[in-house]
Amino acid sequence: MKLADLPTPCLVLDRQILMRNIRTMAGNLARHNVPLRPHLKTAKSIDVARLVLAGQPGGITVSTLAEAEYFASHGIRDILYGVGVTPSKLDQVARLNATGANVTVITDDLLAADAIAAHPANIQALIEIDCGEQRGGVLVAEDLISELAERLGSNLFGVMTHAGHSYQGRSVAEITQIAELERSHVVYAAQRLRTEGHVISVVSAGSSPTGRHAETLNGLTEFRAGVYMFGDLFQAEIETHARDSIALTVLTSVIGRPSGRLLIDAGALALSKDRSTELTPNDYGYGLALDIRGEPALGEAIVRKAYQEHGVVEFDPNHMIAAPVGTRLRILPNHACLTAAAHDRYHVVDGGDDVVAVWPRMNGW
Amino acid sequence: MKLADLPTPCLVLDRQILMRNIRTMAGNLARHNVPLRPHLKTAKSIDVARLVLAGQPGGITVSTLAEAEYFASHGIRDILYGVGVTPSKLDQVARLNATGANVTVITDDLLAADAIAAHPANIQALIEIDCGEQRGGVLVAEDLISELAERLGSNLFGVMTHAGHSYQGRSVAEITQIAELERSHVVYAAQRLRTEGHVISVVSAGSSPTGRHAETLNGLTEFRAGVYMFGDLFQAEIETHARDSIALTVLTSVIGRPSGRLLIDAGALALSKDRSTELTPNDYGYGLALDIRGEPALGEAIVRKAYQEHGVVEFDPNHMIAAPVGTRLRILPNHACLTAAAHDRYHVVDGGDDVVAVWPRMNGW
Repeated sequence: MKLADLPTPCLVLDRQILMRNIRTMAGNLARHNVPLRPHLKTAKSIDVARLVLAGQPGGITVSTLAEAEYFASHGIRDILYGVGVTPSKLDQVARLNATGANVTVITDDLLAADAIAAHPANIQALIEIDCGEQRGGVLVAEDLISELAERLGSNLFGVMTHAGHSYQGRSVAEITQIAELERSHVVYAAQRLRTEGHVISVVSAGSSPTGRHAETLNGLTEFRAGVYMFGDLFQAEIETHARDSIALTVLTSVIGRPSGRLLIDAGALALSKDRSTELTPNDYGYGLALDIRGEPALGEAIVRKAYQEHGVVEFDPNHMIAAPVGTRLRILPNHACLTAAAHDRYHVVDGGDDVVAVWPRMNGW
Repeated sequence: MKLADLPTPCLVLDRQILMRNIRTMAGNLARHNVPLRPHLKTAKSIDVARLVLAGQPGGITVSTLAEAEYFASHGIRDILYGVGVTPSKLDQVARLNATGANVTVITDDLLAADAIAAHPANIQALIEIDCGEQRGGVLVAEDLISELAERLGSNLFGVMTHAGHSYQGRSVAEITQIAELERSHVVYAAQRLRTEGHVISVVSAGSSPTGRHAETLNGLTEFRAGVYMFGDLFQAEIETHARDSIALTVLTSVIGRPSGRLLIDAGALALSKDRSTELTPNDYGYGLALDIRGEPALGEAIVRKAYQEHGVVEFDPNHMIAAPVGTRLRILPNHACLTAAAHDRYHVVDGGDDVVAVWPRMNGW
């Protein structure tokens, strides 16, 4: 099967680029001597998980309990559920752990901590630390951190943080600085709790940008990152990923040619309505169009509009595009996590246009 | 099962509101004496299709061939595939028609028209007319319309248009005007082709806003609309749908309480990143939060940020919200088509909090 034979729209994953991205992050972390706990919220695929876990201790991160169930059903035991748990989700965690998995939860909330401690299953928990993103997590200076540790008691297993605000960094220097805040906040939290007599086995941090640009990861026991496996235009714009190292594209067909534009069959559902390059140096609309080989042969051909099943590609009028109806293009995504989530499988290529494998992916909750 | 027992995030569909919306549109079209060909790109559910088809001739509209296959497998024969077809998709249409379905395609392209005419299966085609949206379609004054009809020959079955620009209308008067442009363009196209000797059996138009506010639909043989079944905040903002008649919500749990805000487990995937209320009178961010009964008891509590699995609800600081971790909320969507597409089922309620049914929905291509 060739890319030219696939029904469109569909996802294409270039395994050569994927492997290069996996090796790059593994190399970064090996230099810091910190093991990777890959975040599989982007890939949601056991086939990708197996590639990224080669040479790693084997623990993963997930963003939903459905992901935890999926990966556990494929034999992965050590799973960090990296979104604040609610009391009513603990039974599902306990059921999963009863089947042989070891799902660890995170919390920044006293009610949830009490529920974890009171639950008959012995569920490990990490305290979530806010290192500056102001999304979830406790500030290290707050007494709440000690209170949470007390309430969790023997369920307390460690601390974790995520510098989501590294995505707001607009230079390597800025991201390096945020990486140091991420590291130092969670290491300080671990020290504080150890001083207070708690056993802290896990000191976990991470995001793809900080994994790329951290100067030191001293004091961490593990590092978490996910989107680096595929990369996307946003990561390229903030200089954490080379644009020619984006492994994920959406294969689409030209379905119309309104004057000076191309209508394609990849719209808001196939690409997502993520506009994360809106405020970066280059605004790529809903994605950047490449030719079927993944080459930027079209100039700056950008998906400027996205209806449910229609995309509108605008291009440099000086750059002639011979693309009759039926022509296949490949669209680089703004945000790989959201684009991939509309699709149920990856069509895998090894740099060329031969589809060498089809890897299913899971979605939903 | 109660809403309070469901794992979150998940989709909730209020059947009472759905039925009211279905009756309202059916009443509108009955007054115009034009049958409805419902667009099922929003619902993608045979259970919803059966409710909306009661009292209608039975034809539907779909936005993907996967939808066509799904509905055909549930016994619906008469299907309009409402996105411009490419030559390579004709074999799939032909296979589907060979199983007893009757999928009609649309085109505005000579290459595609030639492929339809040359295909061994006798595939019916409508010529797509541009009534002002400038997305797909032929302008009625262009000679291309006659050329397309000639090339299609005996495959030509009619003409169709869609006033997608009715979504840009910002008053009832403006939408009424766009409805008349939609009607008159496609009726004129039909007249032109009939004058040129072609048999035009179908004169099809429609969108939810124009279905609500059209003054006349004279000359149309059918009307297409879809999002009106559920409604959403955008439709409410452009005055084509009452805000208390939105049938679709996302059930979510509070997972954290950063100061002055609520963190919820419905983020960009569960809600979509659609921002279509960005430029309407009220900007609802990524959705408006209601309490678990679907009541606006929280004041203007708006999902202002959407990470992959985290949403951030901001609310009026004068409006106290007692919402500890675990509290359930329901989020009204900006754009029902995109929000629903992240989910694989509807949890159906009849106005209360009892889950009376679970209806699967299909997704993907």
